[in-house]
Amino acid sequence: MRHLLSAADLDRDEALAILDAAARMHSVQTREVKKLPPLRGRTIVNLFFEDSTRTRSSFEIAGKWLSADVINVSAKGSSVSKGESLRDTALTVEAMGVDALVVRHGASGAVARIAQWVDCAVVNAGDGTHEHPTQALLDAYTLRAKLGELADRHVAIVGDITHSRVARSNVLLLRTLGARVTMVAPPTLLPAGVATWPCETSWDLDAVLSGKAHGDVDAVMMLRVQRERMSGGYFPTEREYAIGYGLSPERLDLLGEDVPVLHPGPMNRGLEISTAAADGARSVVLQQVQAGVAVRMAVLYRMLAGAEEVSV
Amino acid sequence: MRHLLSAADLDRDEALAILDAAARMHSVQTREVKKLPPLRGRTIVNLFFEDSTRTRSSFEIAGKWLSADVINVSAKGSSVSKGESLRDTALTVEAMGVDALVVRHGASGAVARIAQWVDCAVVNAGDGTHEHPTQALLDAYTLRAKLGELADRHVAIVGDITHSRVARSNVLLLRTLGARVTMVAPPTLLPAGVATWPCETSWDLDAVLSGKAHGDVDAVMMLRVQRERMSGGYFPTEREYAIGYGLSPERLDLLGEDVPVLHPGPMNRGLEISTAAADGARSVVLQQVQAGVAVRMAVLYRMLAGAEEVSV
Amino acid sequence: MRHLLSAADLDRDEALAILDAAARMHSVQTREVKKLPPLRGRTIVNLFFEDSTRTRSSFEIAGKWLSADVINVSAKGSSVSKGESLRDTALTVEAMGVDALVVRHGASGAVARIAQWVDCAVVNAGDGTHEHPTQALLDAYTLRAKLGELADRHVAIVGDITHSRVARSNVLLLRTLGARVTMVAPPTLLPAGVATWPCETSWDLDAVLSGKAHGDVDAVMMLRVQRERMSGGYFPTEREYAIGYGLSPERLDLLGEDVPVLHPGPMNRGLEISTAAADGARSVVLQQVQAGVAVRMAVLYRMLAGAEEVSV
Repeated sequence: MRHLLSAADLDRDEALAILDAAARMHSVQTREVKKLPPLRGRTIVNLFFEDSTRTRSSFEIAGKWLSADVINVSAKGSSVSKGESLRDTALTVEAMGVDALVVRHGASGAVARIAQWVDCAVVNAGDGTHEHPTQALLDAYTLRAKLGELADRHVAIVGDITHSRVARSNVLLLRTLGARVTMVAPPTLLPAGVATWPCETSWDLDAVLSGKAHGDVDAVMMLRVQRERMSGGYFPTEREYAIGYGLSPERLDLLGEDVPVLHPGPMNRGLEISTAAADGARSVVLQQVQAGVAVRMAVLYRMLAGAEEVSV
Repeated sequence: MRHLLSAADLDRDEALAILDAAARMHSVQTREVKKLPPLRGRTIVNLFFEDSTRTRSSFEIAGKWLSADVINVSAKGSSVSKGESLRDTALTVEAMGVDALVVRHGASGAVARIAQWVDCAVVNAGDGTHEHPTQALLDAYTLRAKLGELADRHVAIVGDITHSRVARSNVLLLRTLGARVTMVAPPTLLPAGVATWPCETSWDLDAVLSGKAHGDVDAVMMLRVQRERMSGGYFPTEREYAIGYGLSPERLDLLGEDVPVLHPGPMNRGLEISTAAADGARSVVLQQVQAGVAVRMAVLYRMLAGAEEVSV
Repeated sequence: MRHLLSAADLDRDEALAILDAAARMHSVQTREVKKLPPLRGRTIVNLFFEDSTRTRSSFEIAGKWLSADVINVSAKGSSVSKGESLRDTALTVEAMGVDALVVRHGASGAVARIAQWVDCAVVNAGDGTHEHPTQALLDAYTLRAKLGELADRHVAIVGDITHSRVARSNVLLLRTLGARVTMVAPPTLLPAGVATWPCETSWDLDAVLSGKAHGDVDAVMMLRVQRERMSGGYFPTEREYAIGYGLSPERLDLLGEDVPVLHPGPMNRGLEISTAAADGARSVVLQQVQAGVAVRMAVLYRMLAGAEEVSV
């Protein structure tokens, strides 16, 4: 694995290898001394063209626990705004002696472009509305920890599918792992080409959650509503969105007791998710955050230390 | 000691234990190799909802000298502004595998709330106008280095008491250590409930400094005037404030030669403190800064490495 | 070497010693494990009063590869904006226990002032339109790698000389190393006192590049046009600047095949440099970036670890 740009880059074996390595990394998180030596002397740059505290911190912790040097470069208000091209920015950062670039960018496809230009490893930490593959990996990790193997499991992904890199990466990875996905959204928030995606779609959240529409649901992933979409006319009011597509306490009761509820965060409580769902026994939101560090350790490890067995 | 939220959390023994540990830590600062191993593999997050370069840097250096991994999270313009609740932000950061959160927040009480939600250690690095306990500890450390034990010593704290977390934490800790405190401020800048505080108050700086009002003064702590208070009508002009409550060269002459002058910084020279006072022989302003790192090392050490004896 | 404030601080022996040390450091960049022990336990603060992602990152990587603790302090929106004096900011940061301050400031001379106030080492990472000595060192390193010794070599520096700290530091260091410099700029962008600089000047880029005006050129350094100068009336339009002083494909053909083209970055492609020049075989732009880390390692090493031989 040279780069990780899309969940589609991972075949089943590679995805499982990362998830297995993440399980070994995860055990480090529970230790008092959270430190492994394998990336000592490697340099990782978090090159963030958009703010993202949670993703940046998660990668920073992952790199530091593996003993790498981690440098944060916020490309807002820096060379970029001085008229430098994206390619020059990437090549410049790489030329300093960087082993891996972890890149967040507001434009879909920008990270893949960077990977074509540089020789070092590149991890896509979210590009526009396109992909966020480590989010899909941490979701798969969390689901596996709850459900075991994911083959033939049925996952409902609910909300703003059109603008969600999380949804896109998840459907790709879940399919690779053999799971079945149903996307649930109002018609305005389903992307134009969704018919070609390897998933089913529905506008009726109650029918999906109750199992009446597409069979029993094994897990529910609620997507964040990005409030800036409101002005785009994608849905009339927050209240109407919450009524139609929020995971209310009533909807929660449609789910089996062991059905985990996921959310990539940050959550809009009262909008796409109720407090009953966010804090209830089914919620695995914090497990997702915890898995994020383990999964990113595994990805960085496999990229920079080679594919040999991890000894933890 | 699980958390450090208020100077009131510390009884006399605990406060002295921190100050003694800080003295051992302080000796590290004078070495060429400023590095101790005890927090290797521990992860500390500086979670700052308000900018504070000096406090954040001081904690960052303290953590790194103890070999911890230190992650800076500026919560301005991040998840928080995306509508995430304070609780979700705190739980998310903790879930990454954090051993201690060092939190600065603009709202009084916010840090104590966070400590109720998380399992990891929490240090209050300043919450609103409420408390800043490590500032009180570094002030006590500096005073002790100058004056010896603080029992029955008389400290004058001068300026904007109402809005000062520094004043509040100092009066609590100084009382615990047996010192006597006189608060000096214009009536508009003394808080409503000050009569219940364990200190005396005065509006007359000259009378206090000369020892005529409340007995000889052993140390003077000048507080920063926050210019944004001006518009609140707390005092008429900067000039009048300086005349009434600034530590002018003339007022400096009222003090004994060995009376230390403290200021938490950043200083408004010419407003609450004259250059003669800031740079004179009595000034211990830079010793305070230096003590800050040692005290924060001691606090982090005692929280994360346990209470056993420090071997430095 | 206690401080590095100006390229004029370096005599020939000292400059060559840094460049030789940088060559040994450079070999570290090509290793898998990029880590040397000599500055373990030393603390370096990047004190940046202006944004500069590339310079800050380069110093941060240099410090970390030498095992120092590196703390970034952005002085924008921090104590400084709270009315603290420059001297108090510098003394405060130093008092925390800092071994070296790496300072970028928007005002010419500010870094030299700081060096008068503090006891720790100070490196000028760019002050106003004045100097940027490590940029000159990395340029000299890059030129030496291409051309061998620089004595009697002829370097053309082209563009906005008036506002360029890069030009100023380069002309000083190149003269110290025995090279000959020709400054090429429109008359509005040559500084008033340029007649006293140890270099020749010209308004005619074609004549200089072809060798007709001042003899054969061994290297060309293009300076960045700072677009904010446009409003100052220094040149009429970007198009006219590019026609008169841009390194176009046609002008590139005036140069010998082995003549390196330098640019300190970030580049304005199509303005001062064409893509043919920026990406062509003569371009050493990325080598400059790479040399930047090695040179800064050498500078920090010589300041903080003493002048004894580096064993790499």
